[in-house]
Amino acid sequence: MSSHDLQPGPSSRPSEPVGALLRPRLLAPGPVETDPRTMLSLAQPQIHHRTPEARAIVQEARDRLRRLLGAPSWEVLIMTSSGTGAFETALLGLVPEGAPVLVASAGKFGERWGEMARAFGYVVSSVKKPWGESLDPQEVAAACGGMRALLITHSETSTGALHDLGAIARAAKQVNPELLIIVDAVTSYGVAELRPEEWDLDTVISGSQKAVAGPPGLGFVFLSPRAVSRLGGHTHRYYFDARKELASQQKGETAQTPAINLIASLSSSTERLLSVPLDVLWAEKARLNAALLAAGEALGCRPFASRPSPAVAALVPPEGISGKQVAGALASLGARAAAGQAPHQDDLFRISMMGYFDRYDALGAAGLLEDALVSLGAAVTRGAAVSRAWSVLSS
Amino acid sequence: MSSHDLQPGPSSRPSEPVGALLRPRLLAPGPVETDPRTMLSLAQPQIHHRTPEARAIVQEARDRLRRLLGAPSWEVLIMTSSGTGAFETALLGLVPEGAPVLVASAGKFGERWGEMARAFGYVVSSVKKPWGESLDPQEVAAACGGMRALLITHSETSTGALHDLGAIARAAKQVNPELLIIVDAVTSYGVAELRPEEWDLDTVISGSQKAVAGPPGLGFVFLSPRAVSRLGGHTHRYYFDARKELASQQKGETAQTPAINLIASLSSSTERLLSVPLDVLWAEKARLNAALLAAGEALGCRPFASRPSPAVAALVPPEGISGKQVAGALASLGARAAAGQAPHQDDLFRISMMGYFDRYDALGAAGLLEDALVSLGAAVTRGAAVSRAWSVLSS
Repeated sequence: MSSHDLQPGPSSRPSEPVGALLRPRLLAPGPVETDPRTMLSLAQPQIHHRTPEARAIVQEARDRLRRLLGAPSWEVLIMTSSGTGAFETALLGLVPEGAPVLVASAGKFGERWGEMARAFGYVVSSVKKPWGESLDPQEVAAACGGMRALLITHSETSTGALHDLGAIARAAKQVNPELLIIVDAVTSYGVAELRPEEWDLDTVISGSQKAVAGPPGLGFVFLSPRAVSRLGGHTHRYYFDARKELASQQKGETAQTPAINLIASLSSSTERLLSVPLDVLWAEKARLNAALLAAGEALGCRPFASRPSPAVAALVPPEGISGKQVAGALASLGARAAAGQAPHQDDLFRISMMGYFDRYDALGAAGLLEDALVSLGAAVTRGAAVSRAWSVLSS
Repeated sequence: MSSHDLQPGPSSRPSEPVGALLRPRLLAPGPVETDPRTMLSLAQPQIHHRTPEARAIVQEARDRLRRLLGAPSWEVLIMTSSGTGAFETALLGLVPEGAPVLVASAGKFGERWGEMARAFGYVVSSVKKPWGESLDPQEVAAACGGMRALLITHSETSTGALHDLGAIARAAKQVNPELLIIVDAVTSYGVAELRPEEWDLDTVISGSQKAVAGPPGLGFVFLSPRAVSRLGGHTHRYYFDARKELASQQKGETAQTPAINLIASLSSSTERLLSVPLDVLWAEKARLNAALLAAGEALGCRPFASRPSPAVAALVPPEGISGKQVAGALASLGARAAAGQAPHQDDLFRISMMGYFDRYDALGAAGLLEDALVSLGAAVTRGAAVSRAWSVLSS
């Protein structure tokens, strides 16, 4: 998320002086609220990354990340980069230069993968839907003939939409069994139902500052056995060299100097997520997000996405109020959410429970949202949002 | 609070596996939830306590503590001890051995000061009310004749009662103008209306792990100018020597080796509290506690105290459910509250928002309480507690 999304922060306090007594909260769709124990784990004595101690840390992190993917037979590369860097690693590692790729998009992040593919000289075709809508599996599949790879975003953070990735992948592979499916799962990994083996995906990308709820700085590239066997790729790569990284990481090393403190913190940040079966985790994350959507609807907002992602509640404010204003009102209450992304910055706002939050925090967030809309003069029935949210959370 | 109050912790998880996804919360009436930034400030490079740097830290902490008392002309001693140690410092420093003292009590902590006074050989008289009731100003005043000191607890943490300290002090001083009033304000300082100058108090005691929301380990002794002029006291004192401490602390030193890291952390922990006028702080703290009491009443509980303290909601559970069971059910949801204290451990439970919490956390706590009572089979109207709490919080 780029800086232009953000409103002035909690320094612009509400006229009511009690605003100063509110706690800061990070409700943006990444970076997210973190467990203080994770932050403390960053401050352990500095270790060197070419040591047995570092190798054990890297291997433990890789094992945990694969368990959270539900695909223990896959490989994973931990990249010292953002999720975009991880995506670039996958693209350059799997698709030879000049190859035809299909980009399926319905929002900012989908569009980004098209920009990246064009920057490296791939022959790019597109299937697009308007922002907020969901991709149609048959339409995507029909365009996959002759393509080397399909680049697709599972949870579109800019619109709050979750695409039906299982259906899309199945349809696409029927049309083109040789197709490599490269999935931006930045905000679906650890949040939404994601079954890489069952859905026959090839590469899944995410990052440390979303559901994993760590600080930003790490990108993850998950590779199916088939993807591993096809690693090779584009000549114009150096730092983002998947084959070289894989050879190193299989030994617990990294090809480049890693952010080893961030990697060590994954042990703490993934602990809570891995303490329950994945379907329980997904159901709870979906419940928290559904509570925010329900609160928003009780406040006269409507979901921006036709098929909402559990990662973020993207809501269209009531008539006469802009998404930026809602994000600003939340900021005045100490809560960092997000407006829409250009060109839709005024059309929606986005609020997320992806981080170190639980159902009682979601109840508090519903209260925050109610107070924010009241402060903007929306016609609001006091208590309705909180009550609707709690009925979702306690059912 | 002693360890026998506490139930088995979050290790005893609810049958629903989602319990593992809940965050831990410290809702006990001390120690309380702390700002992670306060905890981080403990981990600064170790300084020596006989340095200009340490003197600046001690003086800044003393200034902040006095501002939070609203009595900038008073003195303050920061003791490396619990609040009980601070109380002992005040008692031994102000009351010569063998002198007659009056103890006014209606709960565990009031009783404690009688035990302490007897241990040091003072001639102790008592005015008592049953647990949960409030002291009667005229009754206390009538017993103050000939007394050197009145020992009194402002907010009785064991019962959740707030005594009418202003009225009691006024009545007592009318009967005996020479009386020294030594106030246990452990859970009222920074929470409840407390006007030491206007009420003509002499000594006010508190500690670091209550409204200040730091870790335990520091006791505070606030001394009026009149109390300072009467320092002398009991011969049997050494560590808890108020006169020696005052001489040192006026220079930014301490007579004994101080917990300098804890003192340094007061700068961070008091920041939010001092960001608003005291009456705004007191009103907000009262609102959070009133929300918990309202939630409890919606769940069939009733307040244990006839005149509730804003520091802690002490609630009598519905028929057939014990205070220990409620505290246990909350612990299963990750939240550390407290049962009653012996001999009332089963009669009530106590839940507090004193720490690093705001109104949206109080809303979440109402949800926790509702879920806890539901898990114990109480006849509960789903949503009623949350809705009642929110109507208090958003009014």
